This record gives sequence, structure tokens and C-alpha cells, in this order.
Amino acid sequence: MTQKNNEKYIKKCIKLARKGEGKVSPNPLVGAVILDKIGKIAGYGWHQKYGEAHAEVNAVKMAKEKGIDIKGGTIFVSLEPCSHFGKTPPCCDLIIKEGLKKAVIGCVDPNPIVSGRGIQKLKDAGIEVVTGILENECKKLNEIFIKNQLDNKPFIAIKTASTLDGKIATKNGSSKWITTEKARKHVQKLRNKYDAILTGSGTVIADNPSLTARIKNGTNPIRVIIDSNGRTSAESKVFNNDGTKVFLAVFAQTDTSKYPENVEIIKCPKLESTGKIDLQFLTRKLYEKGVRSILVEAGGTLNGAFIKEKLADKLYQFIAAKILGDKDGKNFAEGFDISDINNCVKLNITNVKMFNQDILIEADFLVEQPS
Amino acid sequence: MTQKNNEKYIKKCIKLARKGEGKVSPNPLVGAVILDKIGKIAGYGWHQKYGEAHAEVNAVKMAKEKGIDIKGGTIFVSLEPCSHFGKTPPCCDLIIKEGLKKAVIGCVDPNPIVSGRGIQKLKDAGIEVVTGILENECKKLNEIFIKNQLDNKPFIAIKTASTLDGKIATKNGSSKWITTEKARKHVQKLRNKYDAILTGSGTVIADNPSLTARIKNGTNPIRVIIDSNGRTSAESKVFNNDGTKVFLAVFAQTDTSKYPENVEIIKCPKLESTGKIDLQFLTRKLYEKGVRSILVEAGGTLNGAFIKEKLADKLYQFIAAKILGDKDGKNFAEGFDISDINNCVKLNITNVKMFNQDILIEADFLVEQPS
Repeated sequence: MTQKNNEKYIKKCIKLARKGEGKVSPNPLVGAVILDKIGKIAGYGWHQKYGEAHAEVNAVKMAKEKGIDIKGGTIFVSLEPCSHFGKTPPCCDLIIKEGLKKAVIGCVDPNPIVSGRGIQKLKDAGIEVVTGILENECKKLNEIFIKNQLDNKPFIAIKTASTLDGKIATKNGSSKWITTEKARKHVQKLRNKYDAILTGSGTVIADNPSLTARIKNGTNPIRVIIDSNGRTSAESKVFNNDGTKVFLAVFAQTDTSKYPENVEIIKCPKLESTGKIDLQFLTRKLYEKGVRSILVEAGGTLNGAFIKEKLADKLYQFIAAKILGDKDGKNFAEGFDISDINNCVKLNITNVKMFNQDILIEADFLVEQPS
Repeated sequence: MTQKNNEKYIKKCIKLARKGEGKVSPNPLVGAVILDKIGKIAGYGWHQKYGEAHAEVNAVKMAKEKGIDIKGGTIFVSLEPCSHFGKTPPCCDLIIKEGLKKAVIGCVDPNPIVSGRGIQKLKDAGIEVVTGILENECKKLNEIFIKNQLDNKPFIAIKTASTLDGKIATKNGSSKWITTEKARKHVQKLRNKYDAILTGSGTVIADNPSLTARIKNGTNPIRVIIDSNGRTSAESKVFNNDGTKVFLAVFAQTDTSKYPENVEIIKCPKLESTGKIDLQFLTRKLYEKGVRSILVEAGGTLNGAFIKEKLADKLYQFIAAKILGDKDGKNFAEGFDISDINNCVKLNITNVKMFNQDILIEADFLVEQPS
């Protein structure tokens, strides 16, 4: 089995894994492909829903249903198979039991406590194990899960749409629409990937957005509104009782009696240095409440605060083929006071994509920043 | 001869034509390939230098030198062959004389007076003519020549390097370096494509740039400095007497006696509405003096003025994977007063390219803009 072949099937695993987006949190996205002993595809599967079967189980199941013998075959899986009992029995045991002779793995489990254990268990059973195939792509696939496992914090992404000169609105707040419909449709897909969407009171008051994922079979993400003093109207669309969880983050002393019952209030301390809500506290609280990933869709001040607090992991910046040309236009990130250009916030661009005339830049915030 | 084959050779013509960049102005860039009658490459060539042989002549010459018979063969050429006597005899006559039986042409001559005449001449001589192969690419190749022919104006491009949030410098002017070395090297190549580089007094005072094209066998572009009141030091590097033409644009009453003799002064009227130099006047004057293309490398005010005056044809925006996050940082285009986001200046993105972690966006300013 060549490296090229390994990559081909791990690529297929990644593609399969993505089908679980929006449905498996807090679990990782995983895809698996099984070849029989002569190298023909016998079955494939992915982790479809939290609490249900893992990718490996689904792949084995497909092979069985098709009546294909997988003994002596090879399993490809984007993430190290589990070796422990969770909601389902360990996948390693299944692989051993089914008599597969080889396992090709994308990346190891990021959780330091279990990392490598699955591989060891397979090796101990005499199975040939190849690891690190398209490792970066497999890690990228589970950037949320990895962040959660390593830091016990939610993965936070900022989504913004700007002109070429970085403006998200005119000085008087006109912002509809900077990008074209195709790009905005893609935002719906992004929302479906995240447990929660977060925005500030300014955006709610100015745009009255719904913050729902309007895609077929999509899951509406939890909505988180930061509104320290309860400035937003209780009739704002984000507070609609549509079965989706809504969190409202306010200062401890804010009266929230006007908001509907479906809105869960999170009382937050004020950060001395900014006079605003302590985002470290809020995001920790949200993590405790099961929020594993947050898409921030806010104005420049809130975006800037997430970046400054080193809470932002990722940026999705849509750039339209337009120039505002007005220094008083609204910037997508504000609040820094930098005099040396070398002290800018640094990112690593991972993807650049076009949606008609709109560019989407995906970039990771670097952990090490110049101080 | 299939469409695919035609495109293959016209692509080669475009590649050849580009070898003349920086050396053929005010002529167009042209490449030509000749196949013999059995379809083997017999010769190829490009227009190498203004006043010297056209691409077609060089291609025929190569075939002759190799002793290959091109009678009954096919010529591919990125631009319609000339039918008139200029500095050299008409290429159409050569094609006819050499007995070529077919001509495949990228795009017709943009000059409305001669457009189509070459094609007609070839057809009249019984030569099969195919036109419009990779037409858009061939037009893009000669965007400068086409602008000159149609509008009798220089082609003007703005080059800028910004952060993701559109900032070209911190509030106190720190701007070195936003992009990485690889991107900055590409700027040297860009400079070589333009007849002149233009900047303002602010950039000269802040950065004291040389504005030379530091590439092998490159031609230094003409330097144009806009300095209405003669604020720049006569010792600034841009005024160096290195054999390159230097124009200094000033108000009529400005005393320019301090500047060295190699600097040619252009006295310009003041535009009532802005209190600044009339850019329409200046660029017309530069055109009269033989400047067919200008690369503007300036600050936000001057960039903004070129855009506002509808003089800008093209944008080269390098974007670094950085965020300044400061609303007082310098923007790459200023001076507009837009309250509705739908009234932004619109562009058409033609190319997006990566230089390590820097993105280069190439975009054309749309002729029709919302008013």
C-alpha cells in the first residue's frame, strides 16, 4: 500500500467525517473506510450523531450488510480509534475482533490521557498500524475537539465581512450587504458547524438578526448575546422562542426581568481594565454549560476584545471587491493601541476561497504574539 | 486543429509576450508561434524592444535560422498582426509572403482605426483566420495598450500593502514592513511593468524610498512625485540622478529652485474642490510626455484621490496575515464620504495569489460606479 493510496483513503475519511458537522459535538468528526484483503472498498461510515455509533462501527456495519468478508483487510480512519468504553464500546476491540490486519490512521487522539493508547492496543493485537497520514488536514478537521481536549475551553472563531479596506459598515452603520448572496449562504453553513453564535447588543440593536442556520437539515446554533446593561429590546429576533437555547450575558446588577423565559441569563463580572464584561469568565461559563465552539459575529469592539483577550482561535474574513475609502467607516477589529507595525496581531492563513467576487480568508490566530 | 490546441499555443504566445514587459512601451506585448505544415513547432518569438522587430518577424526568423520550411504552416499570435507601416513593415505582408495557410489570433487590435484590418488582409490573401482564442487573457495581457488606444490616457494602477483590516501604517506612520520579503520582491517585478511610479510628498518624507525596480535586467521606471508646495528635501533618494527621468508635480507658484537639474518640473493647477493638484491635468501631461502607465504607491489620501477622480484602472493589494485593530491606523484609501454601503467603489477581482502568508489581490476598478 503506497503513501499515495493511504492519502487517497484518508482524504475520503475526512470527507465522510464532515457529514457529521453540527451533529456530533462534543465528540470529534470521524470518517472510516474499510478495504477487504484484495484492496476493494468493503464499507465506509462516519460518526453521524452524538451518542450514536462511531465511524468504525458504521463502516463495519456496511460491509456486513453487503455480505463482504473484511478479515485480513485494512481500515482507514481519520482519528485514532478509541480504546475506552464511552457511550459505545471501544472501536479498537471491534477492529481486532473483525480480524483486520492493518489500520491507517490520520492523526492520534489529541487528549493526552488517551493519546496513543488505541494505537498500542492495535499493535499489541498484531495489527500493522500506519499513522500521520494527512495529519495536518485531520487535525484541522477536528480543530474544535482538539482545542477542547487540550485547553478545556471553547474554540472561538470570528466571522466578519468587510470591504478591501477592512470596513464592515459606513460611519452611520449601513452594512447591508457588503458581500453577495453566495458568500452569505456560506455563512449559514459555517453557523451549522458551531455550537453557538455570539454577538453584542450593538449588532442586535442595529441589524436585528435572527442568527439561525438556514440550511436544509441544519441545526440552529445556541445564541449568545452580550448586553451588559440590557439595552436590547425583549422583542429582538434573537430572543425568539424557537426551541433554540439563548444565553444573555449581563452585568450582575442588570435587571433582566423584561426578557422572555426561554432566555437564560449569565451574570458576569466587569473587567476592570475595559469596563466591559469579562470574556474569560463568560466563555468558561459557556463551556461549563456544554458550549464547545462559538462563532462570533459582532462589531469591531467586541471582535477586538476577543482578539485582545487571546480568546480568538480563528478568523473567517469575507472580503468584498469594494472600497469604502472613508476613515470614519467601521473597522472589523478595534481597541488596540499599536504604534509599531511589527506589534500587529499575527495570523496564519489556512485557506483562501472565492465566492463569486467575494474572497473568504480563513486564518488561525497565532498562539505566540509579540507582546 | 482543435480549440484545445489553439489555446495551448496562444497560451505559449502570452507567455512569450510577457518577456517584453518593461521594454516595449508604448507598443503592445506580443508573442507568436509558428507550426510547420505537419504541426511541429518551427519557430517562436516575441516583441522584445520598442522600435525593434515584431513577434511575428522574430518567429519567422527563428524558423529560417533552423532551416525549417514553414510554407503551408500555421501562425499563432496573441494580437492581430499589423497591416500598416510603422517602425517596421506590416506583419500581415510577411505572413502572406511566407505562404502560411492559417493564422490563429488571440484578440483583435483595440485601436478602432486599425481593428480588423489585419485579419481582413490575411483573409483576402486566402489565409484561414481563427480569432478570439483566450481573448480575455490576451486583452488582460495588453490592458495598458488597450487603455491607451481607447482613451488616450495612461493606465493607472494603485499598489498597496495592508493588514487584513486594511491598514497601511500605524497612527504614527510605522509601516515597515507589513508584508514579507517575497511579496516585496514581487513589487519590484510590478514596477518593471510600468512606465512610471508615482508617489506623494508624504511618502517621500516618511519613508525616503528609492522607487527603483531592483530586478535583473529590469528597467527603472520614471519617477513622478506629487509635492504641491515643494515640501520634500532635494536630497530625497527619489531625486537621485541615476539616469532615470524624474517628474515633480507642483502648484504653479511653488519655488522649485532647490531641486537638482535632472528633475523636470510640471506646474499644475489647483483643483477647486479639493485644494490639491488637478490629477486629470497631471496625468494628461504625463501622457503627452510619453508616460503610458503609472503605478501609484502612495498614502491613503492620494490613493483615494485617484480613485475618486476615476483615474484608477487597477488595484494591486497585498494583504498580510495581520490585524492592527486600531481605528486610528492609516487606511489605504481615504477621502470618500459614503453613508450607504451600496455606494462603495466597486471592483472586479481578476486574480488572487499567495506569497507565503501574504495575499495579492488584483482587481479592476469598474468603469460604471454608483453615483
